[in-house]
Amino acid sequence: MTAFAIPLASATLLPATPPGFRFEVLHESRKPGSRARVGRIHTPHGVIDTPGFVPVGTNAALKGMTNAQAASCGVQLQFCNTYHLMVHPGVEVVEAAGGLHRFMGRPDGPPLITDSGGFQVFSLGKETNDDAPELKRRAAARGRNAGTLLSISERGVRFRSYRDGTVLRLTPESAVLAQKSLGADIIIPLDELPPLNVTRERLARSVELSHRWMTRSLHTHLADPRQQAMYGVVHGGTDRQLRAHSVEYLSGLPFDGYAVGGSLGRDRDEMLALLGYVLPLLPREQPNHVLGIADPASVERGVPLGADTFDSCFPTQIARHGTLLTASGRIHIGQGKYKSQHDCPIDPEAASGADCCDGVSRAYMHHLYKQREPLYETLASMHNVRFMMRMMATLRERILADDL
Amino acid sequence: MTAFAIPLASATLLPATPPGFRFEVLHESRKPGSRARVGRIHTPHGVIDTPGFVPVGTNAALKGMTNAQAASCGVQLQFCNTYHLMVHPGVEVVEAAGGLHRFMGRPDGPPLITDSGGFQVFSLGKETNDDAPELKRRAAARGRNAGTLLSISERGVRFRSYRDGTVLRLTPESAVLAQKSLGADIIIPLDELPPLNVTRERLARSVELSHRWMTRSLHTHLADPRQQAMYGVVHGGTDRQLRAHSVEYLSGLPFDGYAVGGSLGRDRDEMLALLGYVLPLLPREQPNHVLGIADPASVERGVPLGADTFDSCFPTQIARHGTLLTASGRIHIGQGKYKSQHDCPIDPEAASGADCCDGVSRAYMHHLYKQREPLYETLASMHNVRFMMRMMATLRERILADDL
Repeated sequence: MTAFAIPLASATLLPATPPGFRFEVLHESRKPGSRARVGRIHTPHGVIDTPGFVPVGTNAALKGMTNAQAASCGVQLQFCNTYHLMVHPGVEVVEAAGGLHRFMGRPDGPPLITDSGGFQVFSLGKETNDDAPELKRRAAARGRNAGTLLSISERGVRFRSYRDGTVLRLTPESAVLAQKSLGADIIIPLDELPPLNVTRERLARSVELSHRWMTRSLHTHLADPRQQAMYGVVHGGTDRQLRAHSVEYLSGLPFDGYAVGGSLGRDRDEMLALLGYVLPLLPREQPNHVLGIADPASVERGVPLGADTFDSCFPTQIARHGTLLTASGRIHIGQGKYKSQHDCPIDPEAASGADCCDGVSRAYMHHLYKQREPLYETLASMHNVRFMMRMMATLRERILADDL
Repeated sequence: MTAFAIPLASATLLPATPPGFRFEVLHESRKPGSRARVGRIHTPHGVIDTPGFVPVGTNAALKGMTNAQAASCGVQLQFCNTYHLMVHPGVEVVEAAGGLHRFMGRPDGPPLITDSGGFQVFSLGKETNDDAPELKRRAAARGRNAGTLLSISERGVRFRSYRDGTVLRLTPESAVLAQKSLGADIIIPLDELPPLNVTRERLARSVELSHRWMTRSLHTHLADPRQQAMYGVVHGGTDRQLRAHSVEYLSGLPFDGYAVGGSLGRDRDEMLALLGYVLPLLPREQPNHVLGIADPASVERGVPLGADTFDSCFPTQIARHGTLLTASGRIHIGQGKYKSQHDCPIDPEAASGADCCDGVSRAYMHHLYKQREPLYETLASMHNVRFMMRMMATLRERILADDL
C-alpha cells in the first residue's frame, strides 16, 4: 500500500458523532458464519431499525407517496438526491425553508440522508445511472443535450445542468455546504465515480482522488457539524486490494458510518462476493451501508454479510413500470391474466389483504395501470416499499432468533 | 304542453325507493327567499350530507387519491363514468369483482353514483366535454380516430370505442344493465345530449326522445331494482317551457331523485338564472342534483336556489394543471412567486395548516409541480377536494343558522 498517498491531515480532524447520532447494536446473530446484526441508528429526527431499507425520493418526494403514506409503510430513513435538488428548486430555496425536513412538511422526522451529487454528475455521461435516461429525455425535450460532465480536476467537477444548460461546479466543499443547506441527518462526502472497465492504474488514481475529496469533505463538515453525521464511501471497484486500501484509509478518519460505493461487479454473485470481502473489513462500531443496491435477493444475501442499511430507487422504479414484488416473486401487473384476479390481493402471502396496498385486488391494479391512472403509481410504490419494509422486519426477527 | 307526447305507461311502473335509500330533510333555511336546505341521503353504502359536493373518479379512481385519502378529505358520494368503465376494464369485469365498490377495494362504502354513459358518447363529437380532448389524444396516440358517434335512433346510440375502435351500442336498457353490473348506489337513465345551438324544434324532439329513453331506463331498472336508486334527468336546454315540461313529465315517474342536465346556458349567470327557474319546479321530497357543475362560485349561489348535490371533475382537473383553490381565490402554483413561500400553506385561511394538504407549503407544491412529481397530483387533488368538502360543510352550517 506504500504506493498510495498518505491521508491528508487526518490527525487534525475533530472527533465525529454529532449530538443526537448514535448507533446501537442490539443483537449479533449467533448462527455460524453469519455477520448479521440487529441495531438502531439514533438520529435527531428519529430511529432507524437495522437491517433497514432506505427508499429513494429523488426530488424530495417518494414517487406518489405522502409523508403519511410513507410512514404507514414503515419508512424510517429516506434518501434524497442533492444533484436533483441543486438543479430544482436549488439548495438555497430548501435552506430558506429551514432545510429538507421542513421543506417536505415533516419537520419532526423521520430522518433523511442525502448524497453528494457526484453520482449523478458522473453517471450522466454514461448509461449506468438509473436516473440518466430520464434526465436525458427531459433535456432532449428542452432541446438541448443532457447534463454533461465538462471536466474533472483536483479541485472538483464542472457539469452542465440538464434543466437549463447552465454550468455548475461541484467541489468537495460545495457538495458538503449544499448538504448543510439541505440539512439531512446523514450526508455523504464527494467522491469520484470512475468509468467502468478502466485500467487498474486509472482506478487507483480515482480511489486516491476520492480519498482526498472525502477528506476535504469531512473537514468542511466538521468545521460546522450541526446535527449531521457523515458516512465515508469505500471505493476500489472490484479490485480487492484497492477496496482494502480504501477501507484502511477511510477508517482512519472520523466518519460516523461507512458506505460501500462504486462498481460492485457485473452481476449479483460478483457483487455479493465483493461485499463478503469488503464488509468484514469495515469498522463495526458504525453503521455499514450499501449504496444503490436493494433488490430483495441482494438484500437477503447481503444482510448475513454484515450490511446494516441499503438504499435504492429500485422498488419504486419497477413499480412505476408495472412490476410488483410478492413473496412468490415479481409479477407484471399489466399482463392480461391479472385483469380478472378479483379476490387476490397483490401479494396473497402478505400479512393481510387490508394491510397490503389499500386492500385492492390485482384486477383493480391492472385496470389502474392500463388506464395510466395516477392512483396506480401511488398504490404500486406503496406496495413495493411496504414489501421491502416487511422483508427487513422479517430479517430482523430472524437475526434475533439466530436464524440468519 | 299538449304538443308533447304522453308519458309512456308510467302508471304501470312500480313505486321506487329501494331498501336502504332515503332522503331526510333536517332543516330548511328560514332566510327570506332562500330555498337552501340541509339533509341526509341514506344509501346502502352510507350517508351523504347535503348540500354536498360529489367528486368525479372517472376510471373508478379519484385522481391520485386512495380510498383512505378520499375519506380523510370528507368525500361521501363519488361519481364514476360508465362510458369509461365500459371501455376499460368492461362492465363484466367489474361485475365479476362483485361490483364497483368491491372492485375499488371499498366494499363497505362510501356510496357511488354512475352516469348512463350517454354524456361521453354524445360529447365525443363535440368540444364541450372535458374528457373529450383526453380521449381524442389517446385515440390519436393509438393511430385512429377518437370515439365517434355513429348514429342515434329511437332504439339507442351506436359509437366507436376510443380505445380499440370496436363499435359499441348504448340503449336505455343496456345503459341501465351496465349500471346494474357496476352496482353504484345511484344510477342515471339514458338521455340524449343534443348539440348546442339547435333549433327549438330539434331541442323539443330531443327532450321527447330523452323522456322515452328515461322511461324505458326506469322500466329496466324497476324490473330488478336491487339496492339502487335512479335519478331522472331534466332536459330542455335554456328553454324554460321545455324545462317545465320535462319536470312535469319526469315528476310523474317514480324516480328516487332528480338531476338537472343538458345545456344550462353560456355563462354562470345564465346557468344560475335557469337553475333558479328549474329547481323550484322539482319534487322536493327527493334529492335535487345539478349535473357537471361544481366550481365554488356556482355552488355557493346554487345552494340557495335549492340544489342538494353537485358533481364535477372541475376541482381535480384544475388541480392537475396547477390551479389550487383557496379562500381568497384560485392560485396557479406554477408561478415563480410561489417558489419561496415556505411558511405559507396552500390556503392560509384553511382551518389549520396541518389539515391542509399534508401540512406542506406553497414552495414545496411549486417544486413538486415544476418537477412533475407524481406526489403533486395526489396532494393537489386532495387539496381541492378538501376545499370543496369544507366549503359544503360551511354552507350546511350557514343554512342551519338560517344565514343562507
